[in-house]
Amino acid sequence: MNKKALAILMRARMRPNHLTNFALPPVSNEANQMLSNSQGTQSGSNGHENGNLNDQRSFEAVRESMHSAISKHKTEVLDSVLNDFSEGYFSLSFENRRKLLLTLAKEYDLSRTQVRELIKQYLGLQPPGNEAQSGGVEDECSLSTFYRIERNLRHSLKPVYETLFERINSHHEGLKFLTILRADILSVLAEGNIASLRAMDSNLKDMLSTWLSPAALELHQITWDDPASLLEKIVAYEAVHPISNLIDLKRRLGVGRRCFAYFHSAIPCEPLIFIEVALLKNIAETIQEVLWDYPPIVESEASCALFYSISSTQPGLAGINLGKFLIKRVITLVKRDMPHISVFATLSPIPGFMPWLLSKLASQSRLAEAENISCSSADNPGLTFYENVLEPEEEKALINSLGDLAAGKSGMEILLNVLTPTTHEWTDSDKLLSALKPPLMRLCVRYLLLEKKRGKALDSVANFHLQNGAMVQRINWMADRSDKGLSQSAGIMVNYVYRPENIEEYAQSYFSKGHIHSSDEVKQYTQPLTEMNPRTA
Amino acid sequence: MNKKALAILMRARMRPNHLTNFALPPVSNEANQMLSNSQGTQSGSNGHENGNLNDQRSFEAVRESMHSAISKHKTEVLDSVLNDFSEGYFSLSFENRRKLLLTLAKEYDLSRTQVRELIKQYLGLQPPGNEAQSGGVEDECSLSTFYRIERNLRHSLKPVYETLFERINSHHEGLKFLTILRADILSVLAEGNIASLRAMDSNLKDMLSTWLSPAALELHQITWDDPASLLEKIVAYEAVHPISNLIDLKRRLGVGRRCFAYFHSAIPCEPLIFIEVALLKNIAETIQEVLWDYPPIVESEASCALFYSISSTQPGLAGINLGKFLIKRVITLVKRDMPHISVFATLSPIPGFMPWLLSKLASQSRLAEAENISCSSADNPGLTFYENVLEPEEEKALINSLGDLAAGKSGMEILLNVLTPTTHEWTDSDKLLSALKPPLMRLCVRYLLLEKKRGKALDSVANFHLQNGAMVQRINWMADRSDKGLSQSAGIMVNYVYRPENIEEYAQSYFSKGHIHSSDEVKQYTQPLTEMNPRTA
Repeated sequence: MNKKALAILMRARMRPNHLTNFALPPVSNEANQMLSNSQGTQSGSNGHENGNLNDQRSFEAVRESMHSAISKHKTEVLDSVLNDFSEGYFSLSFENRRKLLLTLAKEYDLSRTQVRELIKQYLGLQPPGNEAQSGGVEDECSLSTFYRIERNLRHSLKPVYETLFERINSHHEGLKFLTILRADILSVLAEGNIASLRAMDSNLKDMLSTWLSPAALELHQITWDDPASLLEKIVAYEAVHPISNLIDLKRRLGVGRRCFAYFHSAIPCEPLIFIEVALLKNIAETIQEVLWDYPPIVESEASCALFYSISSTQPGLAGINLGKFLIKRVITLVKRDMPHISVFATLSPIPGFMPWLLSKLASQSRLAEAENISCSSADNPGLTFYENVLEPEEEKALINSLGDLAAGKSGMEILLNVLTPTTHEWTDSDKLLSALKPPLMRLCVRYLLLEKKRGKALDSVANFHLQNGAMVQRINWMADRSDKGLSQSAGIMVNYVYRPENIEEYAQSYFSKGHIHSSDEVKQYTQPLTEMNPRTA
Repeated sequence: MNKKALAILMRARMRPNHLTNFALPPVSNEANQMLSNSQGTQSGSNGHENGNLNDQRSFEAVRESMHSAISKHKTEVLDSVLNDFSEGYFSLSFENRRKLLLTLAKEYDLSRTQVRELIKQYLGLQPPGNEAQSGGVEDECSLSTFYRIERNLRHSLKPVYETLFERINSHHEGLKFLTILRADILSVLAEGNIASLRAMDSNLKDMLSTWLSPAALELHQITWDDPASLLEKIVAYEAVHPISNLIDLKRRLGVGRRCFAYFHSAIPCEPLIFIEVALLKNIAETIQEVLWDYPPIVESEASCALFYSISSTQPGLAGINLGKFLIKRVITLVKRDMPHISVFATLSPIPGFMPWLLSKLASQSRLAEAENISCSSADNPGLTFYENVLEPEEEKALINSLGDLAAGKSGMEILLNVLTPTTHEWTDSDKLLSALKPPLMRLCVRYLLLEKKRGKALDSVANFHLQNGAMVQRINWMADRSDKGLSQSAGIMVNYVYRPENIEEYAQSYFSKGHIHSSDEVKQYTQPLTEMNPRTA
């Protein structure tokens, strides 16, 4: 890193309060800057003070350059046309980008007259017969005609805007532009569904998926020797455990730590997804010890590589699984460099646990009200949809821990009331903590192992690791005491373990049967509580 | 380069006589080796001596692994399945590969029953009306249905084998496998057209084109410090001016020379296309001075960068224009490093000139025979399709140069007889040489500037440079005296010049109007011969 870059990095506040601004991809920032410049100086303005008129003019100019980029013959679309369009696009306000994207989705869709014409031709043809028997040479000509018309029909069903996306993709840094374009589409769709725009988004997503094939991604280790401009992005994009200051960043890249990122050659200097690794003696139980314990152990004494953070960086690549091969490739890399490391585990958040539990508690409480159930005894087996998520002992302990405050309330109501406030006061009371631990740990395991959507784990992070071939090894109480950790999962974190020899097998059985592998320790939480099964703390 | 690699490189014959073996991509060589191994040892054999039976079994095994790779659910296609398939494929004989590719094209095509079903649904729907007027919210739902069915129809028209190609593409080194697969498809098609296979090839070509977008290609300079395994490929792939020995290769990478190659991250260590550059004082007139003049000039005295060889390396990427941005990027790179270089030119072969001229002469001669034209005077204006390509002075000079040998023959017959033999004896006679030079130079310019196919230059190399924005600067007599040079273009070579400030404009006018820019010197050849226009030699 050159000295100037370092000096700037040292001066800068590492993490501004308003993350959203910083988290935007740099081109967008540039674009925002360009936007404010052009709003200030009205680039291309003829001196008139009428901002709206000028806005309208620049919109029309961008729309025209978009039209040229789409409609010129393919050999003719030269760099300058695409440059014009991308520069123009970045200069537009969000409102005008929205208008342009709608124009693109609606006016550059496919020609339905042509589709109907080709369907007519197609239906008039005899499809190839049983081709398993080799057709005679004399058939080849009529077969060729058939394939040609079929191909034409397929092409006619391709919206015209796909041409634009393909052309941008083949343009220098075009893939970067497309991720920004898609982020804008997703922002517009977040305001409300528009069928044509939704259809365009799903097309663009399919195209981006094939262009960003895992095989085209390059894995690089990020180190303290990398340029400040890159390290700055790691700080900005870290989504799991925010990087709070320079010392924090330096530690995450220093002794006993590794950071790997995927890059694509057409999106230079932009880490698309990155993973942070700690080299440890044992699988860590809390994120505090990973992030703050100092000094780290001697690397040669480590036997465990702990993946403690995976962040994808581009909002415009939402829904595209970039992490698919990331973990396997990192494991291979670490094993090659450090053969003494034999355990590969994660310390992962459970982002969906509290939202799931609170919504479950709220709906049960509404059910109870609607059915006028006696509040003091919620254990009413007469109602089909009503379910007390607490076991009797748990409910008793909870009510006892609150004393008078619990008067007249069911265990589930207490749970809802205690867990809802974002101040997380329950963590200050030892009594409450020990009463809450058994039900929360048990319910968390239930959530991880048993709550599914279309046969897959409901929790997105769980689903990510399970489909990569991991197993659920251990859940850890008070493993992340940050506000975020408490809000997401009542501070509970989970260790997934990757056993290199079982990765394929576990992934396979998860895919085909939805089977989630877990350790005996974790399985105990799903058994009825008995003296023989006191559950390890 | 490590010492061992160098030693091997020094020992090896740089260019075996049978180029074709060497020119195959290394994986194919590996595959061939694997093939001969498996044919020798019958891997997976149960001891039977019946090779055909074992062949059949291994074919069935590969076919099954192909079926798994296509039909498993997308989240389920794990590395091992694709590895099985690619290894299996490489182990097949060409005959079995042919069988497998035909199976893929025919049995994994699209489901036409499903297409017809969806067409029926589609035709029953009301397409979106004039969407330029924003549709009401109440329309969004029916619109969504419409887009969904349209999308389903589009997907149903996608042959099933596209899924296989997509999956291979996302697999490690899958793109490399696909280029080999396509090379095999092209080999099968070269034996005879098969409509279904042709259709599959055109699909695969489209897919490869978007995956190999120019923006995803990385430009690297090849130097003598590169690994021997890479340099060996440069030797093997050089298609324009064969590299004859180690000294030759070292010179092409040494002082006064540059070599740049495009790589793709998913096809590692494999230069997809490369360009060789000589730094000179003036635009070279002959390839001999570029390849053999020694010592080269001091680089700081160079004012011209001469592109003397461009080779694309992968037969499986035929028809995909990888060179599109190559020259522009190389010019930018050279200008940045050496601002004193102001002229960017090529010394290019004219591969289609002799084939065009000989076929023209032969057809004229057949026409003449058929119409019983007096052979001694071919200048008969009565015939519409008959054209004497020689001017009267040229014909006279040619007949004179041969003396008695020319008795009773027309100029064109003499030309055909003199130029046809592959021994190129005409180059040994000074008399013949000086009689042939004027018509050949003139006809060569006619071929380059005026002979077109669909509005584009007939010559493939000319078309490549013209669409990249070059102009025709000069043609050079006896510029390539190699057998290949004499067979392709009677030894004539052409300098195309790239003027950085005109590249866009020239490319544009070539695309839109088929206009070919050329220097005054070249234009003179297309003017009638007069005393005022003696043509510079």
